[in-house]
Amino acid sequence: MEKIAELLHQYRQGKGLPAAFYTSNEIFKFDVEQIFKKTWIYVGVVSEFKKKGEFRVVQVDNNSIILVRDEQGDIRAFHNSCRHRGAQICVTEKGNVPKLVCPYHQWVYGLNGDLIYAGRMGESFSCKGNGLKPVAIESIAGLLFINLSKDPSYADIEKMKTDLAPYVGFYQLDRLKVAKEIDIIEKANWKLVVENNRECYHCNANHPELLKSWPPFGAGFGWPDDPREAAAIAKKIDEAYAVKRPLWDSMGMTHEPLDLTADRWYRAMMMILENGALSQTMNGELACKKLLPGFTEPDNSDLSMWTHFNSWHHFMCDHVVTTMAIPISESETLVRTRWLVHEDAQEGVDYDLDNLTHVWVQTNDQDRWLAEINHAGIRSDAYQPGQYSEETEGLVMNFIGWYIKQLQSGI
Amino acid sequence: MEKIAELLHQYRQGKGLPAAFYTSNEIFKFDVEQIFKKTWIYVGVVSEFKKKGEFRVVQVDNNSIILVRDEQGDIRAFHNSCRHRGAQICVTEKGNVPKLVCPYHQWVYGLNGDLIYAGRMGESFSCKGNGLKPVAIESIAGLLFINLSKDPSYADIEKMKTDLAPYVGFYQLDRLKVAKEIDIIEKANWKLVVENNRECYHCNANHPELLKSWPPFGAGFGWPDDPREAAAIAKKIDEAYAVKRPLWDSMGMTHEPLDLTADRWYRAMMMILENGALSQTMNGELACKKLLPGFTEPDNSDLSMWTHFNSWHHFMCDHVVTTMAIPISESETLVRTRWLVHEDAQEGVDYDLDNLTHVWVQTNDQDRWLAEINHAGIRSDAYQPGQYSEETEGLVMNFIGWYIKQLQSGI
Amino acid sequence: MEKIAELLHQYRQGKGLPAAFYTSNEIFKFDVEQIFKKTWIYVGVVSEFKKKGEFRVVQVDNNSIILVRDEQGDIRAFHNSCRHRGAQICVTEKGNVPKLVCPYHQWVYGLNGDLIYAGRMGESFSCKGNGLKPVAIESIAGLLFINLSKDPSYADIEKMKTDLAPYVGFYQLDRLKVAKEIDIIEKANWKLVVENNRECYHCNANHPELLKSWPPFGAGFGWPDDPREAAAIAKKIDEAYAVKRPLWDSMGMTHEPLDLTADRWYRAMMMILENGALSQTMNGELACKKLLPGFTEPDNSDLSMWTHFNSWHHFMCDHVVTTMAIPISESETLVRTRWLVHEDAQEGVDYDLDNLTHVWVQTNDQDRWLAEINHAGIRSDAYQPGQYSEETEGLVMNFIGWYIKQLQSGI
Repeated sequence: MEKIAELLHQYRQGKGLPAAFYTSNEIFKFDVEQIFKKTWIYVGVVSEFKKKGEFRVVQVDNNSIILVRDEQGDIRAFHNSCRHRGAQICVTEKGNVPKLVCPYHQWVYGLNGDLIYAGRMGESFSCKGNGLKPVAIESIAGLLFINLSKDPSYADIEKMKTDLAPYVGFYQLDRLKVAKEIDIIEKANWKLVVENNRECYHCNANHPELLKSWPPFGAGFGWPDDPREAAAIAKKIDEAYAVKRPLWDSMGMTHEPLDLTADRWYRAMMMILENGALSQTMNGELACKKLLPGFTEPDNSDLSMWTHFNSWHHFMCDHVVTTMAIPISESETLVRTRWLVHEDAQEGVDYDLDNLTHVWVQTNDQDRWLAEINHAGIRSDAYQPGQYSEETEGLVMNFIGWYIKQLQSGI
Repeated sequence: MEKIAELLHQYRQGKGLPAAFYTSNEIFKFDVEQIFKKTWIYVGVVSEFKKKGEFRVVQVDNNSIILVRDEQGDIRAFHNSCRHRGAQICVTEKGNVPKLVCPYHQWVYGLNGDLIYAGRMGESFSCKGNGLKPVAIESIAGLLFINLSKDPSYADIEKMKTDLAPYVGFYQLDRLKVAKEIDIIEKANWKLVVENNRECYHCNANHPELLKSWPPFGAGFGWPDDPREAAAIAKKIDEAYAVKRPLWDSMGMTHEPLDLTADRWYRAMMMILENGALSQTMNGELACKKLLPGFTEPDNSDLSMWTHFNSWHHFMCDHVVTTMAIPISESETLVRTRWLVHEDAQEGVDYDLDNLTHVWVQTNDQDRWLAEINHAGIRSDAYQPGQYSEETEGLVMNFIGWYIKQLQSGI
Repeated sequence: MEKIAELLHQYRQGKGLPAAFYTSNEIFKFDVEQIFKKTWIYVGVVSEFKKKGEFRVVQVDNNSIILVRDEQGDIRAFHNSCRHRGAQICVTEKGNVPKLVCPYHQWVYGLNGDLIYAGRMGESFSCKGNGLKPVAIESIAGLLFINLSKDPSYADIEKMKTDLAPYVGFYQLDRLKVAKEIDIIEKANWKLVVENNRECYHCNANHPELLKSWPPFGAGFGWPDDPREAAAIAKKIDEAYAVKRPLWDSMGMTHEPLDLTADRWYRAMMMILENGALSQTMNGELACKKLLPGFTEPDNSDLSMWTHFNSWHHFMCDHVVTTMAIPISESETLVRTRWLVHEDAQEGVDYDLDNLTHVWVQTNDQDRWLAEINHAGIRSDAYQPGQYSEETEGLVMNFIGWYIKQLQSGI
């Protein structure tokens, strides 16, 4: 604790964190307690839970969490630990069950978590009070957030819901399906994974596939030094938006830029894809012929959204890419990415999986490598926090500032 | 220490242990010191050591122990560490040697542990006082127990020997051989491995192979709720025993039930196999045509025996299954099972290895899985010790009570 | 700290170290701080760096170090961590680059470590003061030593340079090339790896390939007990040296025995290969037809040299074998061996790689195994430091004495 307070004292705004914040196991545990077990974290999407009894298991540090659609159609979250001997109840990552039955001694729980049956426990035993322990869960227009705290801050999630639901709601996630889900484990501290995601200073040299359709100026990089050239580009961007805004309004899309990264750590930004692209694909053509429910015509928009520090999302007219980062240890982070398409789209007919996933499979792998060499280099005795670029790393600074605040509140 | 005292204080009789007893490395180390380095633990069987010089290495925590049959035919135990530079002397799990020679600098020890030769050590060096460090070893009719304490409690093992030798002696383990030995490493705390073994509440749903011949009522599970039905079954069991007892007496078998699980943690129970089975096989037929030395006719008995918390055994008329559990870390346990048959039995003629081992290979694997999902679920922040079933988990409660006592004695 | 002082107090001269010095992670960290981050350690050879921009990365504990030949032809050492976000700059083990460019955001450093370019950092940012952090590096006639201390002792390396450069200089390492480099990771504490290298008591029984050409008496083992036999051998050795010395003098070789192992830990000893061998090969014939630059005729000499506790070297007329040991953890050590030949020698024509490397590939693997069973045995509760042999383990005692002194100086 004293060590962490001392390290927080060493932190200088505008610079990176002292090495221990990335490499120390003690601080990692503090991160988990102060952040991942206190705030709302993005863990999944409604599109995974089509039917009653459809469940999904998510691991957050030592906690295995069951997400399941209940009899009423709500998605509930429970700790995956039987109230008898503590065994895990759901032992596969996903599935569909009528009841939640512990494989060890067949205690039976309803989809609402109530204990329904426990054999041979004698007269004095009561099922009441022995239900599965619930976990707070909230949906923002289909994006699912859990909070492992015993006393979750609902004001926090309600504010985010109010702000973001209008953007997300347009895409009708409950009418989409998960076409593909890919996990990678990055050998890097979770904050390096997030820092990497919060700037595009590294994009030009490292992401050739992404840059096929990516708007460099909107993403905060690539502005020319010559002020006249820059002004010309800014004008061109403004003109493009001027054309799109009425169209988006007419479709009912929410598209005004929203940036709360300095304070509450989320952001929504409607971008216009570059080079005539309609989707993040190698040739810029649609990845899925069947458009998302809200669209009748192809559109070159990309709603780039970040929520609560552990997720990033791209909503396009034909598919959604949604990614979450969950820490495993001070030097390992799970990055799970899902590609969503219209629930009626058919693989092989409307979309090709390799084509749909190619850009972000490559981009994620490039970012994994960057986060890993970053982590490896920070281990050096010679590392000292360097200066961030105000031009291109402002959002990284915001993230680091937010992170420092979370830790300070726990000291 | 204070933490352990506090945790012991949290323990409530009739409930499981607080999570830290299963998941904490600190408590694991305390378990090793208080239990595995203080009490007598089952590590092998005389049937492995047919000839002089036949040795076997067993690892218990950081200690590698050599078991070897010496010149006089006794089985001795030594620490596997040369008195010169500390190197391991026996570097294979088993073998047969005339002397114990250190591979590093060829110091030579007799089978009694004495240092016989050490080259180039000069005039002043004396072999005397540089013998291998001995480990206390005792045999209960051929079951081998070691004690790593510098001051082993012999009263303890003598009492167990007096109680159990009559049961085991009948099977003449020195005239059996090891037909097969299989190790599995379970990713679970050793106490979860033992708890799993001490109840059959989980058997019905998880052990189809075992239940082919397993007597459900004797094993403490499966009694019907209807008291009249239960009484009828009890009567039937009594009648079966009434038929067998005189036969067993005439053969010289010891068969009275013995249960010291509440106190000293061992038990012997003569069971009668079900469904007309003569052996724990899939079809109930004999696993080995050549009967064990004490038998002239096939017999449907199964002496189910547990010794000192880390072993379980089944003695049948044609083979013996004997299992030991040795902890590796707070979340890993070695489970070693041996199948013994008459020393004159021939593989492929008298027995088929797959047939002989099938039931317990399957059963062990099922139990491994149960212990592992149990361990995984206990890691959850939501875990709280649940209530044991008095009807079916009494022996688990006895084990946990015994364990708590061992720890209390060390605080 | 108190624990280490207490353990140092337990150490008895002439005996091995208490177990914790080999097995404790706390002491391992102290070893790294007191020794590997304070003294000069051997990390490479000039023969690796033929051209400007040729680089090599070496990992010492948490530090990744770049060794690179600069514009002026000097070999420099830098911490491999960008001054911006800390990422590793060189991400392959070796290569050749015009500049050192960070892959993350393309900051560009010169081969002298100066920061030359950093994009988008704004007007106020200055490259000055943001160069790569240098590491002290010194060459002893081509053997490269680094020192990770902020205040390296140059007196130390200068003394070693004065003493050893005359021996090494004759072999003109800058005109040799690395024919092969092989890493092995030994599961043993680094001190056990070194102890193993500092005695040949174990050689007779364990190194059949090495003994094809190895002079047993010079290496401190193998003297017969009979004093008359020993005298006859000594006389024979003296005669052999009497023949060789004038020849070596005429060639300009430095060959007088030098032994500072008791104090500063290095040694040079010119040996004469046995059994008519000219090189350490299986048949004793030359491993490389093209002789090293200093030789016009084959010569059966072998300059056996040890430097500063973490290296050992054999310089012969046709090739050099040079080995370094770098600790990874308390129970893992990297052993990197390089075979050097004349830079003009051609593989397949002048030398066959398998033939060149066979003896030491086998010897290293045998030593790995010995160090590993040594480490495993020392973990035993029964281990107590044994007596070293004065006849054959004097240099081990010197190493241990030196090691104890280093630790004492840090308490």
